[in-house]
Amino acid sequence: MTASPPGPATPAPLFEQAAIAGVGLIGGSVALGLRQRLLARRVTGYDADVQVLQEAQALGVVDDVRATPGEWLRACDLVVLAAPMRALAPLARDLAPFLSPTALVTDVGSVKAGIAAELEALGVRNFVPGHPMAGSERGGVTHARAALLENAVWVLTPTDHTPLTALSRVRTLVEHLGAAPVVMPPDAHDGLVATVSHLPYLASLALTHLVARDERLSLLAAGGFRDLTRVASGDPRMSRDMVVENRAALRNALARFRRQLERLEADLDQPEELLAAAQEGKRTRDSLPVVKRSLLPPKHDLVVAVPDQPNQIGAVTQALGAAGVNIKDIEVLAIREEGGAIRLGLESVEDVRRASEILNAAGFEVRGRG
Amino acid sequence: MTASPPGPATPAPLFEQAAIAGVGLIGGSVALGLRQRLLARRVTGYDADVQVLQEAQALGVVDDVRATPGEWLRACDLVVLAAPMRALAPLARDLAPFLSPTALVTDVGSVKAGIAAELEALGVRNFVPGHPMAGSERGGVTHARAALLENAVWVLTPTDHTPLTALSRVRTLVEHLGAAPVVMPPDAHDGLVATVSHLPYLASLALTHLVARDERLSLLAAGGFRDLTRVASGDPRMSRDMVVENRAALRNALARFRRQLERLEADLDQPEELLAAAQEGKRTRDSLPVVKRSLLPPKHDLVVAVPDQPNQIGAVTQALGAAGVNIKDIEVLAIREEGGAIRLGLESVEDVRRASEILNAAGFEVRGRG
Repeated sequence: MTASPPGPATPAPLFEQAAIAGVGLIGGSVALGLRQRLLARRVTGYDADVQVLQEAQALGVVDDVRATPGEWLRACDLVVLAAPMRALAPLARDLAPFLSPTALVTDVGSVKAGIAAELEALGVRNFVPGHPMAGSERGGVTHARAALLENAVWVLTPTDHTPLTALSRVRTLVEHLGAAPVVMPPDAHDGLVATVSHLPYLASLALTHLVARDERLSLLAAGGFRDLTRVASGDPRMSRDMVVENRAALRNALARFRRQLERLEADLDQPEELLAAAQEGKRTRDSLPVVKRSLLPPKHDLVVAVPDQPNQIGAVTQALGAAGVNIKDIEVLAIREEGGAIRLGLESVEDVRRASEILNAAGFEVRGRG
Repeated sequence: MTASPPGPATPAPLFEQAAIAGVGLIGGSVALGLRQRLLARRVTGYDADVQVLQEAQALGVVDDVRATPGEWLRACDLVVLAAPMRALAPLARDLAPFLSPTALVTDVGSVKAGIAAELEALGVRNFVPGHPMAGSERGGVTHARAALLENAVWVLTPTDHTPLTALSRVRTLVEHLGAAPVVMPPDAHDGLVATVSHLPYLASLALTHLVARDERLSLLAAGGFRDLTRVASGDPRMSRDMVVENRAALRNALARFRRQLERLEADLDQPEELLAAAQEGKRTRDSLPVVKRSLLPPKHDLVVAVPDQPNQIGAVTQALGAAGVNIKDIEVLAIREEGGAIRLGLESVEDVRRASEILNAAGFEVRGRG
């Protein structure tokens, strides 16, 4: 027998004992990340729902499970509050009496000022409010996966009372989970998500309500309208909870949105002004990152014109797949209103060049963009 | 020598001599449809831009070309006004003196009340205002193709003065071009497109202006925000012209949009009301047709979860392509905010079943929808 070669030295994990409180999609994904990346020696799942705990354990998401808070929490040096947003404060109140004073505590709620104040009032010292900007249309622990958090923007919102060492440790955790930490105050975060997330949701909802009042509208509602109302198709309860929790910042965003709309409405009588506004809007929109995979996302796009014939999407993707070109993103630029065209997001300028050649040779008309 | 079998009898064309006034994307596509489907014996292209005419003739879009109005128009029994919207009225004034009183005249403008009144004032008797809801992000005659109009909704907006025989003939023309005619009064059309097209454009523009004023926002702007601002990326001049021309109906739509927003803002203090509104919004959005290819569009959707690994789009489309499953529509349900998932639009329930089997066998998790 020959001795097997020694394996690489396993680095010491960041945490000895982690508790994931609320083992749903996000909590489960954090747990899986901690385990798969060897960031915690042991991961305990805590949830009030015993069935969820059984699922989590059966799926290997956590090492062990707990259905009630208690002394077991004192051994945890990392506690992640991952309940639905409205349940976060009650959850924190339940756990606080049992937390070790040195435990690092963070949460994953999508609105930050309220929970930051709540934990401060509870006297939880090493609390760093967080918001991983990841999600899925399919919730629950069965859809949890470590990859959900990879490359996601994960906002950390320390207050004036957050110890810098705690912030530093959570930032390290986030980086080790493969996500991209971004640090800002809770109020700033809530104001920004009010504008980029909660206001668009409300605007989208208002548009769907116009259609609900006149079904003739759906006859003419084409790609553009679908795009603007897609977010109204999300989970109603979660969407409602988010906007209610963030209503102060949202009202502010609504007021600014209304002022922009009023200015544009006034410009309807000043065509030159409106043209300038339209040009500025296009510039801004075209400079938005295509897929928010990192803070410096790739913008290597290719637009392919496709004739109105069967299986054009398949023809395009197969031609590229056969040549080993990796399609990172794909978007049908509406079939009618914007013409038969597909936008492909590729990895590099070189891939755009190769894909153009391949598709040209296959008889497609292509155009680079961005 | 053996005699070749007699060919099928060619049906008489609908028109002897058609004039396409304005040979751009839409005009060129109508011309190609008329020629390829043998709907007109001869198609003349008229445009003030001689270079456009040369291109049109070189591409075989038209049989012959004219750069000035004149007596040649009297021989035309079909005249299609296909200039950009702001040029339609001047174009009509230029051509009107030369039109045969029996000529069928239609236009393709995206706002109808103004041009309908204009042509009536000019005394053009057999005028039927029309709006083919087709377009492309790539304009100009070089991108014209008959397929652009196939299955497109083509709204016809007769006034009280439009002869029913003229309406009937244009409807037949539209059907023969492969499009789906929908008839309603000009004001009704303008009100509907104000709501489903021009209002969303203005809302989208207002959102981009918020981001333009604070670049931190683009850091957190994910899939949802991109969706809501996509239409702001269209041609600024064309978009501006549309909304200015339709400003009366648009102001009305804006007022109704504001009322909806105000109601939702008030509901921020009434969480139960807001939940009902969110649920109603989701119902409405989920019942919108996926791709407006016909008045009864297919809704055979399949959602595929994809891990965060290279070339998942290629893997999915290639697996289906190899099995001969035709992908009619594809949509990345955002990479992060909505989780790694792709929506596929397929042709039939049977295709959804087959695709599910194929993708399951390939290790993907799938879910039917709709």
